[in-house]
Amino acid sequence: MPSYDYIRDPQEIYRQSFATVRAEADFSDMDAELATVAERLIHACGMPDILEDLAWTADAAKAGREALRAGAPILADCRMVVEGVIRAGLPRDNAVFCSLNDERTRPLAAELETTRSAAAVELWQDHLEGAVVAVGNAPTALFHLLEILGKGAPKPAVILGFPVGFVGAAESKEALIEADLAVPYITLRRRRGGSAIAAAGVNALAGLAKSADMS
Amino acid sequence: MPSYDYIRDPQEIYRQSFATVRAEADFSDMDAELATVAERLIHACGMPDILEDLAWTADAAKAGREALRAGAPILADCRMVVEGVIRAGLPRDNAVFCSLNDERTRPLAAELETTRSAAAVELWQDHLEGAVVAVGNAPTALFHLLEILGKGAPKPAVILGFPVGFVGAAESKEALIEADLAVPYITLRRRRGGSAIAAAGVNALAGLAKSADMS
Repeated sequence: MPSYDYIRDPQEIYRQSFATVRAEADFSDMDAELATVAERLIHACGMPDILEDLAWTADAAKAGREALRAGAPILADCRMVVEGVIRAGLPRDNAVFCSLNDERTRPLAAELETTRSAAAVELWQDHLEGAVVAVGNAPTALFHLLEILGKGAPKPAVILGFPVGFVGAAESKEALIEADLAVPYITLRRRRGGSAIAAAGVNALAGLAKSADMS
Repeated sequence: MPSYDYIRDPQEIYRQSFATVRAEADFSDMDAELATVAERLIHACGMPDILEDLAWTADAAKAGREALRAGAPILADCRMVVEGVIRAGLPRDNAVFCSLNDERTRPLAAELETTRSAAAVELWQDHLEGAVVAVGNAPTALFHLLEILGKGAPKPAVILGFPVGFVGAAESKEALIEADLAVPYITLRRRRGGSAIAAAGVNALAGLAKSADMS
């Protein structure tokens, strides 16, 4: 019967994982905080080459870190992002909010003639101001967020824009980059993205917030 | 203020997404059911080139489909996979089970000197027989599953093996492929994987099960 030789110590797995990420990716065009976030995004998906597609504003890591330190909520487009956020890592026991399964979402989607994911964003409005937004699934959620921000909705502190897939994902992320909203963002051009990457972005910002608390 | 031109109709998004997947990937070495599963895996991650790394046994799609039709539970290594499983798509309201946050898992991990993810697999033993296993995060969970199966644990119906990352992911998936366990599997060689792909595998098997019910 086979016995396998593999690393069982969580700390050592973590250490070797990030050592590999640092060895294989070049973070020289980022400041230290953004590099910390980018490392976690790579760690979440196993693909150092996402760096080629990563786009960000210079203030995004700081804005997200300070928002979490101020107790800001995290607004997620899907339950998988909610589950990916490590609660023990949050600096202020921040709320993690997803309105996709809110009973108002489905009728609202019918009324607005859009997806449930986009309709769910409508229900973010009272929580948006200063929030950390994490989109890990639906291009229509990101598009709809850009639409309501363009109409004057309260501004989040930072947008982690990682919708994934073949229809609208690339386009919604380009729209985020091109929108002149004065909202910091981190995003991944083209088709790749997903809930694990979006949650990793939140977890990275939470780590920066906790480090800032201790310094 | 910008207005965006994008597809808002969920059915049309779905249709165009799968049309793109089918146009960009070559499923000619698979039977129809396996191809259906592979399409959903690609759809979940936005990467048609995962087909290059996909490995499977010929009976995997059928075994998974029939297990779900028989009411088998789904055993997941992490909460993100649980959330990614579309409950309404399951043919028998099948249970979706994740023991990562079970109160016994942490002390068991300390006792076994391994990760929580691996210890959680110990708690699967009473549910393993005929189950659909979906590993979307932890290489140590897949390694530990292979270890207990090698020691005679009850056999699942199918293993969807999609741990992700830099330490042990590739190795655990190669071990699954090389293990002579007579358990059907679908897996993705090398570093890529993740909870969205694992959940998509479950959802695809559920779709096949519902189609079989109706035929």
